[in-house]
Amino acid sequence: MSAPAAPDHAVADLLGLVALGELLAFERMAADARFAPDLRRRAALSEMAAAEIANYRRLADRLGVLGVPPEEAMAAYVEPLQGYHDSTEPRDWAEAVTKAYVGDGITDDFLREIAEALREPDRQLVLDVLHESRYAEFAAAEIRHAVSADPKVAGRLSMWARRLVGEALSQAGRVVAADQGALTALIVADGRTDVAGLFRRLTAAHTARMAAAGLNN
Amino acid sequence: MSAPAAPDHAVADLLGLVALGELLAFERMAADARFAPDLRRRAALSEMAAAEIANYRRLADRLGVLGVPPEEAMAAYVEPLQGYHDSTEPRDWAEAVTKAYVGDGITDDFLREIAEALREPDRQLVLDVLHESRYAEFAAAEIRHAVSADPKVAGRLSMWARRLVGEALSQAGRVVAADQGALTALIVADGRTDVAGLFRRLTAAHTARMAAAGLNN
Repeated sequence: MSAPAAPDHAVADLLGLVALGELLAFERMAADARFAPDLRRRAALSEMAAAEIANYRRLADRLGVLGVPPEEAMAAYVEPLQGYHDSTEPRDWAEAVTKAYVGDGITDDFLREIAEALREPDRQLVLDVLHESRYAEFAAAEIRHAVSADPKVAGRLSMWARRLVGEALSQAGRVVAADQGALTALIVADGRTDVAGLFRRLTAAHTARMAAAGLNN
Repeated sequence: MSAPAAPDHAVADLLGLVALGELLAFERMAADARFAPDLRRRAALSEMAAAEIANYRRLADRLGVLGVPPEEAMAAYVEPLQGYHDSTEPRDWAEAVTKAYVGDGITDDFLREIAEALREPDRQLVLDVLHESRYAEFAAAEIRHAVSADPKVAGRLSMWARRLVGEALSQAGRVVAADQGALTALIVADGRTDVAGLFRRLTAAHTARMAAAGLNN
């Protein structure tokens, strides 16, 4: 069954939200690279950041084609997304890579779900901006390394990951409020997605990712 | 006349210096994006930053092929390059774009000169990592815009640009000291370049760029 047409402004809202997410993730990861214990890891996080801005450009270009200035499509989401990052400033390298790992993972799961509510070419565009798995593998390896060097770190990072998810959920509520129902309509217009089921799937995938990195949910 | 062979370790030193320059320029531009007056400009500086990290990856890969770990080739230059950035923290958007404009311009001129002392594929690699001119055009337009909005800004930014060049020269002396003659040998091995002439050309090009952006040298 092909997806029913989503209203254009809802699509622009969604692309704006994703574009802003990329832009802010870029800035924060680039800033967090300062925590890296050596130049190799510093470059690795910087490259993860740069991948976000390349995706930003693709989304901004698509918004241009749709006749919506990117900054207009993003404006409503600046406060919640900036709020998420401001309230989750990592204090060290392990927290920085955990934040990238948790944030990218949940973002990708969400985008995979939401893509199904879009028509081409937006469906494929959203699937294309998913993060490369090598970045998640790098982050998970860094987390496991930090935990094996000091087992007490597992508890601290597990707690940090729970805080990240909590802050993300709290800001997600503000995102829904900010866009005045357009995104929710997009998800529901899909006819397939129930919001409770969406949350359940995102949570299950997050729990599996935590375990893969040696953390507890 | 083809360039005579430069010793391999000198080539690795040069690639390490350029790679570290890209990595640190990335970090600083990404951090400076916070000064942008709007999301469009913030994204533009972030994209300029991301171009640097893509170049870093190419240089690091080439160092790998040469059998030199990138962090080893970069290590000697961390102090002077970090010193340059630490001593030239922009205080606002106009200073940030001026720093990107001045720094990229001089870096590119220097790389164009030095490339001639290298054999392929390193010669082409160094030419490939030159900055795209659209970034310089963006920065110059932002500077002219700032000056036209407030003519007093021209004096402040001209003075700022002189400080950038002064700090860069002072750190360049430390770079030469750090690499224990390998880079100087590379330039002189060229048989064509005299260091005084190199400085004269870099200075003339810098003066022309200042004028193009509406600043005084």
